[in-house]
Amino acid sequence: MRVVVTGASGFVGRQVVSALRSLGHSVISVGRGDYTLNDSQWIRADILNPGMAETLAAAAGADALLHLAWTTRHGLYWNDLTNLEWLSATVELVTAFAKRGTRRVCVVGTCFEYDWPEDSDCSESFTPISAHTLYDAAKSSCRRVLDRVAGQFGFSFAWGRLFYLYGPGEHPDRLVASVCRSVLAGENARCSSGNAVRDFMDVRDAGAALARLTVSNLQGSINIAAGEKASVGYVATMIGELAARPDLIRLGAIPDRVGDPPRVTADVTRLRCELGFEARPLRLGLQEALNYWSDKKGS
Amino acid sequence: MRVVVTGASGFVGRQVVSALRSLGHSVISVGRGDYTLNDSQWIRADILNPGMAETLAAAAGADALLHLAWTTRHGLYWNDLTNLEWLSATVELVTAFAKRGTRRVCVVGTCFEYDWPEDSDCSESFTPISAHTLYDAAKSSCRRVLDRVAGQFGFSFAWGRLFYLYGPGEHPDRLVASVCRSVLAGENARCSSGNAVRDFMDVRDAGAALARLTVSNLQGSINIAAGEKASVGYVATMIGELAARPDLIRLGAIPDRVGDPPRVTADVTRLRCELGFEARPLRLGLQEALNYWSDKKGS
Repeated sequence: MRVVVTGASGFVGRQVVSALRSLGHSVISVGRGDYTLNDSQWIRADILNPGMAETLAAAAGADALLHLAWTTRHGLYWNDLTNLEWLSATVELVTAFAKRGTRRVCVVGTCFEYDWPEDSDCSESFTPISAHTLYDAAKSSCRRVLDRVAGQFGFSFAWGRLFYLYGPGEHPDRLVASVCRSVLAGENARCSSGNAVRDFMDVRDAGAALARLTVSNLQGSINIAAGEKASVGYVATMIGELAARPDLIRLGAIPDRVGDPPRVTADVTRLRCELGFEARPLRLGLQEALNYWSDKKGS
Repeated sequence: MRVVVTGASGFVGRQVVSALRSLGHSVISVGRGDYTLNDSQWIRADILNPGMAETLAAAAGADALLHLAWTTRHGLYWNDLTNLEWLSATVELVTAFAKRGTRRVCVVGTCFEYDWPEDSDCSESFTPISAHTLYDAAKSSCRRVLDRVAGQFGFSFAWGRLFYLYGPGEHPDRLVASVCRSVLAGENARCSSGNAVRDFMDVRDAGAALARLTVSNLQGSINIAAGEKASVGYVATMIGELAARPDLIRLGAIPDRVGDPPRVTADVTRLRCELGFEARPLRLGLQEALNYWSDKKGS
């Protein structure tokens, strides 16, 4: 298949492009920068520019569109009004591609769309949708609108909800990266109480799952997660053990974030049974994250 | 024509329904309450309920849809995440009606969509769009999305941007109502400096203009305003004079609102030349507002 990937130079995008190529697909990567990927066609484009959706759709001649691009202004995007620009730009983009004959569209959502249940996993079928921030509200709204667009044009549409990611290219201040960097430097890794339970997935698995989802016929919302529940404290402790420095893990050294939900975990039945995807074990992913940051440090 | 009006029991909605009836159209009013209007069919419905769009469209058999309903939670709606629910519900509603054969759709926007120029009127063609609050950003995004929907279904689509309204049914704390009430009670009307320039329109004119717009073939964005620029101070002073109590108008008695734009005025060329609509003079409207509040007081 000929697949267009927007946000291709991002944390997830790079892994998706690589996974699609491994599956033998022809990839056209779209991003705002000059970033280029080996063996893939790169189009530099800002999707928020008027008319860009049409230009891209005409140029690409794509069988499938995987749309990852969205506002990611660090620390700001949760309540940034540009979320609304992304919403309408996304609808324009998908519409333009559908008009040009693209029959398959996959867009990413977020676990923040759910009204997280405290005693169970977030299920695509049963968990109610909530609005915590402008970011997830805009994503939810986008999904609802695209559902209508898909019905009208008759293309096949999937919405992949990402949970918590770590791995190559992670922002150095995020949980797994920062704990890895601390223990590798022989410094204390100051953590919150660590009681919050999450579903952590290696970004390479997220990329592979999204690639598979994009070229599949699966429709509707689908959780993209490893399905391995772990508390933040468990993750930090495991990194400490893998690095043979469990003494450096300081749980409770910093306060818990106010309003942080106690549990955000994914029901991965659809991903496993309908897409047949299985992520690597958390322990292996964390070992590889340690190796990644160790290599970074050495280089 | 058979016209469905949502938000029909609201400040603007009541006037629109009455104007459409005067023009000889058959009106189906939709609202969340039990409110009923003489000679018009009333459907009680919450558009945010899943499936409601489809139910309404099927029941209505409408030639035209005028969609006014939106979140209006007093003081909250500027940054309320329900704006996003209204965005997607609006797209669902319009899509459902289009599928059922409705060929004309009119939705209301707001002067807050504009990046207000300080030295000229807001023009549908030339003034850039900005994002001041979640409310106007969601409205802008909605318009862009509906433009695509209209293109796809081939229905005729107009977007009426309302400016500043006053008149029967106005919230008693808003400018014109509160100044009228104060002077009628013989009390001081404490105002800001009054330097901000606005375009005030009688809500009955806004209703009449929207009614005409809905049953016209005019497409795209169109400002719904009187086209008579007046400073807030001028408006308050005129009410004082009309009530023969100019002594009660106290400009500068309360601070100006932080971030209040110095000028929000409308270019009404489209409304006047393409729709042929002319609003009543401000002086007449204010006199009638005084009469309205005087009657209210007496009753």
